[in-house]
Amino acid sequence: MKEPKKMQVYGDSISGNCLKVKWTAAILGIAIDWVETSVLDGSTRTPAFLAMNPAGQVPILVRDDGSSLAQSNAIILHLAEGSPLIPADPVLRAKMFEWLFWEQYSHEPYVAVARFQLHYLGRARSELEPKIVERGHAALALLDRHLSTSDWLVGQGLTLADIALVAYSRVADEGGFDLDAYPALQRWIGRVETALGI
Amino acid sequence: MKEPKKMQVYGDSISGNCLKVKWTAAILGIAIDWVETSVLDGSTRTPAFLAMNPAGQVPILVRDDGSSLAQSNAIILHLAEGSPLIPADPVLRAKMFEWLFWEQYSHEPYVAVARFQLHYLGRARSELEPKIVERGHAALALLDRHLSTSDWLVGQGLTLADIALVAYSRVADEGGFDLDAYPALQRWIGRVETALGI
Repeated sequence: MKEPKKMQVYGDSISGNCLKVKWTAAILGIAIDWVETSVLDGSTRTPAFLAMNPAGQVPILVRDDGSSLAQSNAIILHLAEGSPLIPADPVLRAKMFEWLFWEQYSHEPYVAVARFQLHYLGRARSELEPKIVERGHAALALLDRHLSTSDWLVGQGLTLADIALVAYSRVADEGGFDLDAYPALQRWIGRVETALGI
Repeated sequence: MKEPKKMQVYGDSISGNCLKVKWTAAILGIAIDWVETSVLDGSTRTPAFLAMNPAGQVPILVRDDGSSLAQSNAIILHLAEGSPLIPADPVLRAKMFEWLFWEQYSHEPYVAVARFQLHYLGRARSELEPKIVERGHAALALLDRHLSTSDWLVGQGLTLADIALVAYSRVADEGGFDLDAYPALQRWIGRVETALGI
């Protein structure tokens, strides 16, 4: 008898967007085959990769039948369907979606991009666009304020919102953001890391 | 007997993100009170507004009990729960989410931002960051390729993916993007506008 084929995830282990998928699969006990795919060496720009994701981005999830799914937050939503990582209550679920979209629009483009430029491209802090630094701090400050009165981003426990937002918040120092300025955020990072076992 | 209080939507009619909410409510027959809120005159930066949405962005939906919800795509997901605008099939639903996140990460920051700078801030085309023009065209080209083989972004009919992506695609020319280069995209825009009655 053949083992059922696992879902494949093409991801780069330096990418918080990719790690979201690894962590979500792990905490839900979903077995995946991780295909390490570097964003630095052109692996996401090959014709074979672009056939799976025309946007040329990791992570992607590839199913047994060859169909693929891109966008980190779409993938974790798909993996977590029916689990407690997605609140059953419609109002809480809507708040979780609010955080997921905010993460991709107002947090990742600054916090993750600053980290990539400093830590992986070797740029100096002085070379960062001022807008990136300013908006990155604004995103971290907004999170810190919210987390000063609640342990989790939504409701009373871990949800996909925490997984999505912790991915780059926990390595924000690599982008030049001093997390000591955000004590509630720091405590929440520890809480989410413990919940995820990372 | 008192009329039940309608949900309020704070939105700017020049903003595609806000119009998504108006169109989704209209096609679903959900009555809302639209509170016109300009992004140009500081209305989204007042203490009262920031208390509703610390991110200082429109649209927001405000419920009867005073609770609020931000992020255009989170709001339309909330309004459309249980409707055919969200595919029941998990694989199609995941694809719809992929488009919604892609829209906010890879389309809106270029296509909408170029339009805002040219059409509302009065900048010249030559003042646009080259990255914005290049990535805006890349987003429109990706949509055009996808729509050259299918009438709708996901499955066989209108979904939230079409509503989210049409919002700024239909006014891309105001951002200096010539839609004549994208014939399948143009035909799809007409199809979605007809479906929405706009």
